Amino acid sequence: MERDPAIAAIVMEALRQSCEVFYLTDADGAILYVNPAFERLTGYSGGEVLGKTARVLKSGSHSPEFYREMWATIKAGRIWRGRLVNRRKDGTVYVDEQRICPIKDETGAVRYFFSIRHDITREMQLEDQLNQSQKMESLGLLAGQISHDFNNLLTIIIGSMDLVSEELPPGGVGAKLASEILRSSRESANLIKQLMVFARRQESRPVEIPLNEPLKELKVLLDSLLGHNVSVAYSLAEDISKTRIEPEQFKQAVMNLATNARDAMNGNGAIMIRTFEAGPEGLPAGVPPGRYCAFELSDTGPGIPPEILPRIFEPFFTTKPKGKGTGLGLSSVYGIVSQNGGRVIAANRDGGGAVFTILFPAITRA
Amino acid sequence: MERDPAIAAIVMEALRQSCEVFYLTDADGAILYVNPAFERLTGYSGGEVLGKTARVLKSGSHSPEFYREMWATIKAGRIWRGRLVNRRKDGTVYVDEQRICPIKDETGAVRYFFSIRHDITREMQLEDQLNQSQKMESLGLLAGQISHDFNNLLTIIIGSMDLVSEELPPGGVGAKLASEILRSSRESANLIKQLMVFARRQESRPVEIPLNEPLKELKVLLDSLLGHNVSVAYSLAEDISKTRIEPEQFKQAVMNLATNARDAMNGNGAIMIRTFEAGPEGLPAGVPPGRYCAFELSDTGPGIPPEILPRIFEPFFTTKPKGKGTGLGLSSVYGIVSQNGGRVIAANRDGGGAVFTILFPAITRA
Repeated sequence: MERDPAIAAIVMEALRQSCEVFYLTDADGAILYVNPAFERLTGYSGGEVLGKTARVLKSGSHSPEFYREMWATIKAGRIWRGRLVNRRKDGTVYVDEQRICPIKDETGAVRYFFSIRHDITREMQLEDQLNQSQKMESLGLLAGQISHDFNNLLTIIIGSMDLVSEELPPGGVGAKLASEILRSSRESANLIKQLMVFARRQESRPVEIPLNEPLKELKVLLDSLLGHNVSVAYSLAEDISKTRIEPEQFKQAVMNLATNARDAMNGNGAIMIRTFEAGPEGLPAGVPPGRYCAFELSDTGPGIPPEILPRIFEPFFTTKPKGKGTGLGLSSVYGIVSQNGGRVIAANRDGGGAVFTILFPAITRA
Repeated sequence: MERDPAIAAIVMEALRQSCEVFYLTDADGAILYVNPAFERLTGYSGGEVLGKTARVLKSGSHSPEFYREMWATIKAGRIWRGRLVNRRKDGTVYVDEQRICPIKDETGAVRYFFSIRHDITREMQLEDQLNQSQKMESLGLLAGQISHDFNNLLTIIIGSMDLVSEELPPGGVGAKLASEILRSSRESANLIKQLMVFARRQESRPVEIPLNEPLKELKVLLDSLLGHNVSVAYSLAEDISKTRIEPEQFKQAVMNLATNARDAMNGNGAIMIRTFEAGPEGLPAGVPPGRYCAFELSDTGPGIPPEILPRIFEPFFTTKPKGKGTGLGLSSVYGIVSQNGGRVIAANRDGGGAVFTILFPAITRA
C-alpha cells in the first residue's frame, strides 16, 4: 500500500507540515531531502544543504570516536540512537535526540540514511521536574525524621543539664564535662533547627501582605549584614498584590539568599532585588498557571555552574570550602518558600551572575 | 524538492524500514496508511486496520474527556503531544508517546492526521536511573553529614556521662536525669549507626569469597530469626565465582532482607534464597556489562506496589505502621551493597511476591 502514489503524496505533505525534523542522506551522508522543520530548527534552507553532508551541523562537542562509532553502526545496517549536540547556522548549539535508520536496497546494501529527530526536551523537562520534586520530598522526609528524633533528644539534654550541673561539685571534671556537653548540644540544636526549616517542620503564622513590606523592614539589617563592598539596588513594584506569607520567615529566606550572593562574589559586587507580578503566561516550566507575586535576587558573581543547579537546594550540598558555612542556607530558603506555598528557582542571568526567583501565589483583588 | 517522486519513493521506503511507528488517518480518524513498525508494535496487519479508526487501539485507560480534548486539539489544526495507553491485538497494553500532526490542504482545512510514535522508553529509563542514583547520592550526603556530626556529639555524651554520674550524689534528681540522658543517647547512637551504614561511612574489610559461604554460616541464625511459620528454601550455585565483599556486612544485608520479607508476609510464608552467576548478557537495565555473582531473595508475600519501588531504599521510607520498624532496614541493605561495589534491585515476581537481587562483580578465574 505504501507504494500507492496518492498515499505517498499525503505522507510527503505530512512530513512537510510536521513539527518533527526529518532528513535523508545517501550512503556517504550527502543530504538528499530535508523537511521544513529541519530548516526552522537549523536555520539552513534546503537549498543551502542539499548535496552537502550533515557535517555542516557539527558543533565540535563530540570526539572523532563518537562519530566513528555512529558511522560504524549505521554503515553496518543498524539503527543508531543517541544524543547529538549540533550547531545551527547562526552558531548556537542545540541537542538532538536522534534516530538514524539505514535504508537498504533489495540486495541488503545500505543505500540511504533516514534521520528522525525526537524532540523530547519537554518530556525530559517534565520528568526531571517530577524527579527533582520527588528527590526534595525524600530529602525532606529524611531531614524531618532525623531532626524530629534529635530535637527530642537535645531538648532532654539541654533541659536536664542545668539541673545535673547544680548537683555536681564545682570545679571538678564532671562540671567541666557537663558544660562541654551543654555547649555541643546547643550547637547541634542549631543545626537541627535549620534542618527542621528545610523539612518544613517549623511553625508558620502567615499573614496577607505585599512582599515589599518585609523587604523594606529588612533594608537596614541587610546593608549591615553585607558590608560596605556589596551594594544593594531595589526595584519594588509599588502596586504589587498581596500574598499569604509569614514575614519573618520570608526575611530569613532573603537574608540567606543575600549572604549566599555575597559569598559567591567574595564580598565584592552588587545585588539587585526586584519584586513584580508574574503569570499567568510566561511562568517557569512546571509552575501551575496563575498570578504570582515574584521576588528576584540577582548578583554580579560568577553564576552557578549548570551541573550544580539541580542540587543547589539540597541540605549540606555546598561548593564552599570545608568549614565555611553549613551548606544549609539555601536548603532553608527552599523549606521556607515551600512551607509558604511558593516556589524558588535558581538560574543564571544572561550577562553572568546568579538569579534566584521566588514565586508566591498572588491574592487577586475581588 | 519533496515533491520529487524519486525522493518520495526513498522516503516511503525509509518509513517502511523505520523502527519508528507511523500512521496516517483521514479527518475522521479512518486509517489510510500504517508502516511495518506499526504492524509489529500493535499486532495488526495493515489489511486489518485500513479503513478502520485508530479506536481499535483503545485500551479503556483514558476518560472520554481525554479523547475529546485530543480531538478538539487536532481538529483545530494544532499538534497533539501526549502519552497514550493503547492495546495490542493480543490484548496487552503499551504506552505510546505520540505526536499527532494535523495535515491541512491549501485552504487550511484539516484533511489528515499523521501520527508519529516516539518510543522514548529507553531514554526515560536511562534518565530515571540517573535521577534515581543522584537522589540516593543526595540522601547519602545528607545522612552522612548528619550522622557524622551527631556521632561526634553522642560519642562525647556517652563517653562523659559515666564520669559525670560518678560525681553526682546517688539517688538524686541529677543522677536520674543523667541516666536518662545516657539511655536516650545510646538509643540515638543506634539510629546513627544505621544511618552511617546507609551513608557508607562504616568501615569495610572485604575478602575474596563465594557468596555461598556467609549464607551457609547464616542458616541457623536466619531460621531462628524468622520463626516457625516462615520456611527458607536454598538454591546455591555450587560452582559460583568468588567476589570481594565483607562477609559480616553481607550477612547483615541478607538478614535485613529476610526480616523485611517476613514482615511483608505477616510472619507466614516462604522465602527462597538463590545464588547464581549472571552476565554479561541479560543484566538489569543500567548495570554495567560484566560477570556478576548474584544473590536473590524472593518471598510469597503480596509484592511491592509499583509506585513504591523507586523509594524503597530511602532511609525512613516505610509502609509499616508507625512504631513498627525504623524504616532503615532496606536503606542499610542499599548502603552495604553499594559500599561493597554491588547493586541491589527490588522487583516483583511474575507470580506475585517481592524479589530482591544483589549483584557483586565476579572475580573471574585467571
